[in-house]
Parts: sequence; C-alpha cells; structure tokens
Amino acid sequence: MSKEMTAAIIGGGVIGGGWAARFLLNGWNVRIFDPDPQAQRKVGEVLDNARHALPMLYDYAMPFEGVLSFHDTLEQTVEDADWIQESVPERLEMKHRVYAEIQAVCREDAVIGSSTSGYKPSELQQGAARPGQIMVCHPFNPVYLLPLIEVVATDASDPAIVDRAADILTSVGLYPLRVRKEIDAHIADRFLEAVWREALWLVKDGIATTEEIDNSIRYGFGIRWAQMGLFETYRVAGGEAGMKHFIDQFGPCLQWPWTKLTDVPELTDELAQMIADQSDAQSGHLTIRQLERKRDGNLIAMMRALKQQGNASGRLLNEHEKRLRPVLEPDNPLVSLRRVIPTDWTDVNGHMNEGRYGQIFSDAAEEVMAFVGADDAYVAGGLSYFTVETVTKYLAETHAGEAVEIHSRVTEGKGRKLRCLHEMRRASDGEILATCDQLMLHVSLETRRTCDPGPDVAARVAALAAAHEGADR
Amino acid sequence: MSKEMTAAIIGGGVIGGGWAARFLLNGWNVRIFDPDPQAQRKVGEVLDNARHALPMLYDYAMPFEGVLSFHDTLEQTVEDADWIQESVPERLEMKHRVYAEIQAVCREDAVIGSSTSGYKPSELQQGAARPGQIMVCHPFNPVYLLPLIEVVATDASDPAIVDRAADILTSVGLYPLRVRKEIDAHIADRFLEAVWREALWLVKDGIATTEEIDNSIRYGFGIRWAQMGLFETYRVAGGEAGMKHFIDQFGPCLQWPWTKLTDVPELTDELAQMIADQSDAQSGHLTIRQLERKRDGNLIAMMRALKQQGNASGRLLNEHEKRLRPVLEPDNPLVSLRRVIPTDWTDVNGHMNEGRYGQIFSDAAEEVMAFVGADDAYVAGGLSYFTVETVTKYLAETHAGEAVEIHSRVTEGKGRKLRCLHEMRRASDGEILATCDQLMLHVSLETRRTCDPGPDVAARVAALAAAHEGADR
Repeated sequence: MSKEMTAAIIGGGVIGGGWAARFLLNGWNVRIFDPDPQAQRKVGEVLDNARHALPMLYDYAMPFEGVLSFHDTLEQTVEDADWIQESVPERLEMKHRVYAEIQAVCREDAVIGSSTSGYKPSELQQGAARPGQIMVCHPFNPVYLLPLIEVVATDASDPAIVDRAADILTSVGLYPLRVRKEIDAHIADRFLEAVWREALWLVKDGIATTEEIDNSIRYGFGIRWAQMGLFETYRVAGGEAGMKHFIDQFGPCLQWPWTKLTDVPELTDELAQMIADQSDAQSGHLTIRQLERKRDGNLIAMMRALKQQGNASGRLLNEHEKRLRPVLEPDNPLVSLRRVIPTDWTDVNGHMNEGRYGQIFSDAAEEVMAFVGADDAYVAGGLSYFTVETVTKYLAETHAGEAVEIHSRVTEGKGRKLRCLHEMRRASDGEILATCDQLMLHVSLETRRTCDPGPDVAARVAALAAAHEGADR
Repeated sequence: MSKEMTAAIIGGGVIGGGWAARFLLNGWNVRIFDPDPQAQRKVGEVLDNARHALPMLYDYAMPFEGVLSFHDTLEQTVEDADWIQESVPERLEMKHRVYAEIQAVCREDAVIGSSTSGYKPSELQQGAARPGQIMVCHPFNPVYLLPLIEVVATDASDPAIVDRAADILTSVGLYPLRVRKEIDAHIADRFLEAVWREALWLVKDGIATTEEIDNSIRYGFGIRWAQMGLFETYRVAGGEAGMKHFIDQFGPCLQWPWTKLTDVPELTDELAQMIADQSDAQSGHLTIRQLERKRDGNLIAMMRALKQQGNASGRLLNEHEKRLRPVLEPDNPLVSLRRVIPTDWTDVNGHMNEGRYGQIFSDAAEEVMAFVGADDAYVAGGLSYFTVETVTKYLAETHAGEAVEIHSRVTEGKGRKLRCLHEMRRASDGEILATCDQLMLHVSLETRRTCDPGPDVAARVAALAAAHEGADR
C-alpha cells in the first residue's frame, strides 16, 4: 500500500486484537472500538505477543508501525476507514445492529469483514443498507501468525470490493481463500468440528486421554498436514498408480462399521474422477518421486525446527539423539563431531550456507568443551566458554546429505583461553571442506564476564593442549 | 540396543519398506520377505528416500547400518528375529495364515506387530497358537520420518512383550502410543476418516477444490496441530477462563445444523469435567501466557523452516517478503540489512548462536551484491560471489526479538575480489554486537571456479570501494 491506510477493528478480544496487530505491524493505522472496559488491556496483551512474534517470520524489518487509537464511538472508529473488521459476539441481531451503525457513516467502498465462523454472508447481509460491502473474512488464531482467511461472499456482493479485500489481505501477509459457495461453518471449521466430535467420543469411551489424542495428531498426520494438507498427502500415498486409483481403493472403507454413524456421500465414478482431475491440476506438474522429496524436505525442516524449540516431535528427536551422542576418543586430533548435512542448512546457491559452518564448528566446540569437563552439568552450574573470535576458511562446497567429520585440536589452553583449530572433512574421501580457528574465553553465566575455569577443567584443557602441541598440521 | 538385533519385515511395500529403513538405519539387521517380484526394487526406492532423509533429522551421525537381506521363505526370515512386522494386504484370513506360519518357527518372546489400520488386535489374535505376542503396531507414512506408532493390545496380550515392543520402538526413534482399548481404526485414522468424509462432501457440492481444501488445512489449523494437536490448542484458545469454561461454551455448537448429519455424544457436565481434568494433567503446569509463547515459538520456527524450503506457508512468506525488501541508499556505510532476531536463531546459552552471525553477515553480503548489480538475475545468469574467508568478532550477546542493523563497507573491490567489513549494531542504541571481515571471490556457477565479474558489476564494486575508502572507522 503506498498511501496511508486505516483499519477499524470492532470488537477487541483475542481475534479483534489479532487483526489489529496484523494491520498495525504492516504499517496501517488502526482504530479500535470495544465497550469492554478491559479492551485496552486485552488488545495490549495480544499486541505484546504479536510484536514479539510476527517480525521474526521475516528476514527483513517490517514497516514502521502505524498509529493505534481507541475510540468511544463506532462513528469515529469507522469514518474514512479502508477496512472495517467486525469481531463481536456470535449473535446475528447484534451483528445486524452493528452493520447498520457502521454503514451510516463508513465509506461506500470500504470492506466490511466479519470474523464469524457461525454465520453465512447471506445471513450477515440481511436488511443491510449496502449488502454488497459485507462479507465473511474468517481468521484463525493466532491471527498475527497464521495466514489463512476464509473469504465468503454472495451474489449480492460487490465483486470489486471482494477483489480489493483479497488484495489487501495479501498485502498484509494473509492468504485469502475464496470460498466458492457459502456453507455453514465455511470450510476449515467443518473439519475441526468433525474431529472435535470424534475426539469427544474417544475421551468419553476411555479410548484415549486428551494428551494421547494430541500426540496421535502431532506425531503423525498433523505435521504432514502442516505442509501438504489432505489431498496432496494422499496423492503421494497413492504412488504412481495415480489419484483415481487411490480414491477407488478408498471406496470400501466408507462402508466400514466405524463410519456407520454418519451420512456418507456416494463415491460415484464421477466424484472419484472429479477429485482425480482436481488433484492433477493441483500437483500434476510434479512426479510422485518429486512430491515425496518435497514432502520429506518439509517434514525434516519442520521437525528440526521443533527440535530447536525442544517441543512436540522435536522433543522426541532430542530424546532419541541422546542415544546417538558418541563418547569421544582422546585422539590427536579429536574427532569431535560426525554428522550429515541437513536440507535446512542449504541456501539459494544450492550449497551449505556459510552461517551453518559457524554452527557446525560451534557444535564441535561444545563437544570439545564436554570432553574437558565443561559439559551440560558444568554449564548448568553457571560457567561456560563463549566464542569471541573465529577465522573461517571456506575451501570447498558442501551439500545436503553429505556426511562430514570435524577434527579438532586445542592450540591454546591457558588461563581463561581455549583456542581450537577445527577442520571439517568430507567423510567419504577426507577432503578438507573448511577450517575454523576459534578463540573462546571462559565466562561466568551470572556476570556474563570472563573468569577462571574450575581446576578440573583447567587441568584437562592444559593436558589436551599439551597432547595436541606440535602435531603435524 | 547393545546386542545385535534383527527385524523381519513381512510385506515390502511402502509401509514395509519404511519399517525396514527405520530399523536398518538404527543399526538393526533386517530380513525381508515378499513374494512380489518387484519387492526388491520397491523397498530399494523407499530406502533411497530414507537414507537421504532420516539422518538429516539428527545432529549426530546415526549408527552404522545393519545387514539387509531378502529371503525366499517366511521361515528363514523370521527365525530368531527380535521383531516381526506384518504389512501384508488387509485380508484377515491372509493375516491369520501368515501368523500361523510365523509362529511355527519364530521366538516365543518376539514381537509380532501388524501395520493394519483396518483390524483390531483381538481379530488378529483369533485362532493363533500364541495370541499373546501378536499386537497392532500401526505406523504413519513416511514411516522413516514420522514417529507415531499406535500400539494396540488386548487382555490376551503378554504384558512383558508389549512393554518390550514399546521400548524397542522408542529405541529406534519412534513414539509408541499405547491405545487404552481396542477400537475400529484405532485413533488417528478415525480423525482422518472424519475429515475425508467431510472433504468428499465439499468437493462434491462444489464448495472447494482439492487444492483449496489443502490450503484451508495447511495455512491454518494444520500447522497449529503439528505442534500441539487438538486439546492443547483449544486450551490456549480458551484463555484464562479455563478448559471447563471453553468446553461448556462449545456445547451449543454441537446442536448447530452443520452437525445434523452425525450422532453426537451428549456433552454432559461429567464429560466436560473429564476433559478439563485431563487437560489440566497434560498442560496445567504452564500458564496460558506460557502456552501462547510456546505455541508461537513453534509456529515461527516451523513457518521459517517452510520458508527456507520455499513451500506451503513458507512460500507465502517469501512472496510477502518481497514487499519488505528495501532499496538500499548509497551511504557510507551502507545500511545493508535491518531485521529482528528470530527465536530459531538462539541456542542453549539463551543467545544468538554463533552460526547465525555467519548467516546474517552472509545475508548482508547478498544485499551488497545486489546493490552492485550481482542480484538474483545476475546469479541466475551463472555468475556469483562465494565467500572464501571470514574473520568474525563476537563483541556482545544478541537475543531473540532484538532489532539489529548491518552496516557494511567495501574495503577491497578490485578484479575478482570483493571484501566487506560488516558491523552488526543493536537498532535501539547502536551498540556494535559483532563485526565480520568477509572476503569474497567472483565465481562462475558453471565451473565453480573464480572468474572476472561483468563490467557493470566490476565498475560498481570499484566505485563503492572508492566511496568507502578512508572513511572513519
């Protein structure tokens, strides 16, 4: 948006606050109307979360924030606004009253979006002065992070306003999903409702607890769906035989007893063909093998992201990895690390990003630290080594999937200093891919200043430095 | 596992191949039996994928692979095996026949796991010589990456064998979900079936295409579920009012028209309380604010992972980010980059990992490159700069959420050389957090060797070096 833009947020709870944050952090001015005396505090809490979180998604700074203001009247709030978002409680007569007040003063070309999950746009438009500018724009919590907005219009909608709504949503980093026909609960909430009903049964019947159900989702299909959704996932599962074959196979399952409680669409050949055709249009430009590689790359990158956070399937990886950590042999040099280069370490040049060399040498240094007794327990006790300078030479390219080893020598180990010379070698042929001369200083994690290491660590650092002295380079 | 372990894989399709890969890459010997003449090729393809993907999950090397062998008889395959995994077609009488053959020769304490999604363990155990060792171990595709295994036993099961099965699954990086009572389709597939039915209706009724449905999942609740599943997500949504309050609120929705097609459990106060109690046991040790931060950290890290892969919601981020990329001003120094430090850049010391300094300086260098004309189009044309040496000084700690700027000067810009001195400054007070002296050489992306830059780029590099010469440091 080149000119200054203004959003009016009607109803400032978690959802309204999320909309406010999304616009504000993208440079829009945001006006808020909510008669709740707690509104300012509640919106402030959502904004705190959003200001912390949303800018982290991007590798560039976001625009300067717009101006945030709270207003006592709806009139002041919506006057001249480009976008008006209604997130009041799910009572239709209240929404109708609010729209009447808004339309008495708002611009005729403004978007009036409703966050409703319970009403169809035709219901919202009933009795409105200008039904054409009212539509469903249904977000997902947290609104400041998740991109999906279900945009639902009717035949009475003004196509120009709906198109502009979609453009505006895209401009603030959201994804407008244009729902083709209105339907109760739109799309995603119908899935959520179906799963919720099933989950209630499972808890009620003592099949699983809430935690076990959450685990059944996040350790399996949940993370699969985060990247491909339902149909593309099944397309991959179906393999080279194709989507039509996969759907046809699925037919009998629909008659199984575990679906007896529900009405089921008849899986006619026509419906199977329609799904296969749509799937071809969606993913047909990639072979199954390419889709598998894409899926696996996504899963690896997301699971490694959760590993870094220490949560969900990443917590499982951290637990399992404890079994993989080797005991180092006191060799010269130390083989401080052996690993495979993961897909999330590469960049647009198709090779390992130079930042990841820093990470792998840092990981190697942690192993050297552990070897001299500056291990996790020592760090938990408030002492550690911090890196103050590195000299890195990049000698050859490194690619995802390659196995590498780090060979480390302690070249200085007196007082507060610990200096290592690391070589990263390709495991298959021993070629040196990079070297790093790394100077670390011993620090107190309390004062964040340098201090002497404990006597055991000092002795073991000195011994290692002596053992590595004068070795052939 | 300290001693050598052997898995027998009966049925070598995508699922059986995935089991084979999971065991083999964790150091087990794996024997495969499948009369399909294509079995060796099919398993080989799954193994190719798995060997590429699974080791990338870990920051240590995996164990040496065990021995893989294909066998002509079931007897040879299962003899002395510690684990026998049956993944034959979903026909009960065939499974019974296979179990009879297996039990005629296998160890009495071996685990016999079935990959079935369609049969309950009591059905599998019917007529078996030793029903106690047969259980459901239901995996999710790709088995070599996703950790979930639904373990379902019966009263006839040997508890010692079921416990050992769970230990073995954990030892190869899987997550055994012990299902409390057997039920058709176990747990996760009930959810999948519910969503699949709803999706068929939506396609049939022309509400959305397969691609739109996939987008409605992966841009919204799909990525939310990848980290918290269903109940913990709703616990966060419910806020400080608590889970019981949230469930009570949900009651009326179950009566709404969009659920009219299905049977619904009566949401008694007793059921609501049971769910609330289980949720407290699961997540009650964290406040809602802590859960929100945890959720947001997970979402940010996963969305950034997808951004690096360029897929799903990460593709949307890359698109939106194009709008955020600023045009650099020809200042001395160049302000080459402004950004916020994301949560996935920090390490166990609670500050930015030294590897990420390398990444941010590399990103800054890319902006300098673009400024002198070595932009994306230039790189696509087969020419680029590669970093050959960096000297990085770490002057102060940097934390997630901090805004920083990179100030860059070109200190050498002749021939094939491009040398930059970068300073990373905290945006709030200008403190220098780190510096990087970065030497790049111009390369041909075809030969991967140095070569002269194009004349335009050479001229602009030289001009920038002249403009930055002798400036105050």
